[in-house]
Amino acid sequence: MDTRLLDGRSARLAVRSGAWTGPTASLAPGYAQANFVALPSRYAFDFLLFCQRNRKACPVLDVCEAGSTAAARVAADSDVRTDIPRYRVYERGRLVAEPANLLDSWDDDYVSFLIGCSFTFEGALAAAGLPVRHVEQGRNVPMYRTDRPCAAAGPFSGELVVSMRPMPEAMVAEAYEVTGRFPEVHGAPVHAGDPAALGIRDIASPDFGDAVDIRPGEVPVFWACGVTSQAAIMNAGLERVVTHAPGHMFVTDRRDEELASM
Amino acid sequence: MDTRLLDGRSARLAVRSGAWTGPTASLAPGYAQANFVALPSRYAFDFLLFCQRNRKACPVLDVCEAGSTAAARVAADSDVRTDIPRYRVYERGRLVAEPANLLDSWDDDYVSFLIGCSFTFEGALAAAGLPVRHVEQGRNVPMYRTDRPCAAAGPFSGELVVSMRPMPEAMVAEAYEVTGRFPEVHGAPVHAGDPAALGIRDIASPDFGDAVDIRPGEVPVFWACGVTSQAAIMNAGLERVVTHAPGHMFVTDRRDEELASM
Repeated sequence: MDTRLLDGRSARLAVRSGAWTGPTASLAPGYAQANFVALPSRYAFDFLLFCQRNRKACPVLDVCEAGSTAAARVAADSDVRTDIPRYRVYERGRLVAEPANLLDSWDDDYVSFLIGCSFTFEGALAAAGLPVRHVEQGRNVPMYRTDRPCAAAGPFSGELVVSMRPMPEAMVAEAYEVTGRFPEVHGAPVHAGDPAALGIRDIASPDFGDAVDIRPGEVPVFWACGVTSQAAIMNAGLERVVTHAPGHMFVTDRRDEELASM
Repeated sequence: MDTRLLDGRSARLAVRSGAWTGPTASLAPGYAQANFVALPSRYAFDFLLFCQRNRKACPVLDVCEAGSTAAARVAADSDVRTDIPRYRVYERGRLVAEPANLLDSWDDDYVSFLIGCSFTFEGALAAAGLPVRHVEQGRNVPMYRTDRPCAAAGPFSGELVVSMRPMPEAMVAEAYEVTGRFPEVHGAPVHAGDPAALGIRDIASPDFGDAVDIRPGEVPVFWACGVTSQAAIMNAGLERVVTHAPGHMFVTDRRDEELASM
């Protein structure tokens, strides 16, 4: 299967049929991908409020109310129970299963959230001639817990999680400019330079994803990351919550450029 | 009282003490003002979702969870029950009272929302030399129901409401540019030109606020308006809901320019 030829809908159908089971980074280039969270409806207000209060990290692309599994506003004919290659089920903060679909474990009381993902602006970085090191190196983007507290909402709280992409010093300003055009998917960096300013002790040991090379003359540049919402959910220790597995995202019908500001 | 000398906090204290009882348009220039809605907590998720789905019209600046009346993220030492000069209480969609405070009628189960208001970008329009006709004429901004449906959420639905400011034809592009810098408070216009394109039949008869003069060579320019949220609430016919009275807004500590994009 030549995944470069897939559009968002075809990518979801390939996932749903089991034809595609791996990470989604190379699927349907140019179509925005999203983080996924589903939780019991009694937590839905507080979680939506957490996203609203921390929207640079947690930009909400769509919400499926209880009883609905179609993310109709961003993905035609979609079903959030089947259109992600791998899920994670947590109970009281502990990972208990990694199913390939949720057909057997869905609860009609669940409310689902699709949250923007920085994959969306990476195409624009590359198009501008800026490096996207983890793609070059065939790795997952490195992500770090910071010491910057998020604004809490109900049981949801925690620190900001950031993704990191090294940039040659002379290209840092352009990285701010290019990604600043995508306010709906994290926007401009939160920091460039000394990781210690964010409370990151060891740049070679990311908390999520893989380490990447930082070459001489390069500066680590940090963006707010949608995994912030998953960290807050883990902290909340809810009886049950479902997310996508890292790197296995929900592919939407929205073109990356549609999420750039007008 | 020289209201031009007030900052946001002093303005709220003047309102709370009863020293200021009128509309807030001239209070604390440069400080962002907000629309106010309070409703029973069981509707809070759907209403927040309505705002999220229609955020060009309904940008959420702060939310006070049930049990809280301080809008701490945008206004120090604030109390949403006392810091607005005039409220409106609706029961099943009918206006039943216009109290000067909510101390006697508050319910700890209420969740309050502060929603951005286009007053915020009017200073920037004026600073750029663009006309703000309703201010020149000492009137409330004219607002119109359109035929553009909002994305619904639970019981909340309805059509987009827009505010209108006439611009000389040669200044329309600049009006888009200046207000486009304020994505958190409605951003760029939704339309400029023929009112019929928005389903507006008679530009001389606004649905809310006052008519203003449109001079020869001027084009009506339309912005998404926070009153959209109030129209959706009226449509929902909830047993009880409280809003600010038109023109009597909540004054925040946020400078208008802080709500411009970085």
